[in-house]
Amino acid sequence: MNRPILTVPVQKVEGDSSAPFQDLLAVEEPLEIRLQHDRDDKSISITMRTPGNDFDLAAGFLFTEGILQDAAQIREIRWSPPVEGNAGVNPRQLGNSVTVELNPGVQVDLDRLERHFYTTSSCGVCGKASIEAIQMQGCPVLPRNSPAIDSSVIHHLPEAMRRAQPVFERTGRLHAAALFTPDGTLQLLREDVGRHNAVDKLIGAEMLARHMPLSDRLVFVSSRASFELVQKALMAGIPILAAVGAPSSLAVETAQRFNLTCRFNIYSGAQRVQ
Amino acid sequence: MNRPILTVPVQKVEGDSSAPFQDLLAVEEPLEIRLQHDRDDKSISITMRTPGNDFDLAAGFLFTEGILQDAAQIREIRWSPPVEGNAGVNPRQLGNSVTVELNPGVQVDLDRLERHFYTTSSCGVCGKASIEAIQMQGCPVLPRNSPAIDSSVIHHLPEAMRRAQPVFERTGRLHAAALFTPDGTLQLLREDVGRHNAVDKLIGAEMLARHMPLSDRLVFVSSRASFELVQKALMAGIPILAAVGAPSSLAVETAQRFNLTCRFNIYSGAQRVQ
Repeated sequence: MNRPILTVPVQKVEGDSSAPFQDLLAVEEPLEIRLQHDRDDKSISITMRTPGNDFDLAAGFLFTEGILQDAAQIREIRWSPPVEGNAGVNPRQLGNSVTVELNPGVQVDLDRLERHFYTTSSCGVCGKASIEAIQMQGCPVLPRNSPAIDSSVIHHLPEAMRRAQPVFERTGRLHAAALFTPDGTLQLLREDVGRHNAVDKLIGAEMLARHMPLSDRLVFVSSRASFELVQKALMAGIPILAAVGAPSSLAVETAQRFNLTCRFNIYSGAQRVQ
Repeated sequence: MNRPILTVPVQKVEGDSSAPFQDLLAVEEPLEIRLQHDRDDKSISITMRTPGNDFDLAAGFLFTEGILQDAAQIREIRWSPPVEGNAGVNPRQLGNSVTVELNPGVQVDLDRLERHFYTTSSCGVCGKASIEAIQMQGCPVLPRNSPAIDSSVIHHLPEAMRRAQPVFERTGRLHAAALFTPDGTLQLLREDVGRHNAVDKLIGAEMLARHMPLSDRLVFVSSRASFELVQKALMAGIPILAAVGAPSSLAVETAQRFNLTCRFNIYSGAQRVQ
């Protein structure tokens, strides 16, 4: 089975001397997501991720990309079988490919994956087209009045997240994302080498538990806030995104367009939240 | 013209009060990379990036993905024309699509882009396959003896990079990557919302200046070290990768396989470099 942490021999350098050292590293391995639909079995995506909660990651990815809308569309999620006819199959492969099988009759727009996400016919390639593209994907405009959230709750998020991070504590090398209630209670935390994967793991878990939309949750990420993270929060109907790091211009424009409340530059104990 | 920074109105929150504030944000916009080859004109990739040095980014991406091997293959790099027939063309589009035109007779393997990079027929999807895939792309195994590099040089990298970072200083929200000589002289620095883009901009600039391979350079990145960054350094023949953040397991395994020297967890003034 794939593990999220691996011990790797390295040289530890201090000043001019170095010595062998067993370092704990976050595992990075590809995950293939396959979609099985009637007799069609298609590879949809390969992402570099940290193993763990891979079924949630697959479901969350398909949901935030607008391919699936509902857990009821899914018949089963399972590990893909090893490729046939290879004597020397790497055992790790068994845990690096997930097949999402859909229920009979479910309509999915696989062409969406062939099209360019960031282009529209009206304006070519630009940030405005990126925003329009997620609107066409069915991304909802949130109600103007998002749940009230107290500043003390926001300041408490980094500490609450750190307390719940076993892997991060040991390696300090993973992105984390967590869902909180508006009063600051941590509901679910996921870690990954890719910040988008950590968020997809959260959203996929909640989708499979039939908790969508997440209109009474806030999501907190340990990273900067990109367009992609804003898009994923919006697709899940999450009204509040908080991030340790700064947002990009397009992340802010997209959040404003869809009424997503964002709180950025949140450090534990910092005086400034914006 | 696209700018790397944008002033965006936000609410600045301090304690329980908030006030309007003009914040400087790093711009994030899509860049389309097109390849023109004889009469064929094909969209290759769309990446979310910070505008600036986009021709370098396009050249660097095509090089580190193994599509192009040499600047002599390129006839011209230019902005793609606006999509025809659209009255309401967004002016930003003009700066969001780059066409790389190849010289007549140049052979490129465009099928490579259709294939899955992280899979091989011998082992399906796994980290080992990812390593084998870049070997098949022609990624060279570096000589065992990389240039000697003094620990004092390594410790000096973060400070040298910060001094050269105008955008980062103003916003604190971009990834940076820089090329140094082995004695610690900064040669070139690039910033981007995407760490892979910052590295592609560096490598593209050097490729277009016909400085490849970069066997007497080290690259320093302000981020964690992923498999993707190790791959890009290797494709350019860079023997030393230094990173502020921790590496993933696959980044270390790949570096060891190709004799790339890595120095991780490098903080300014820190006692520990590993």
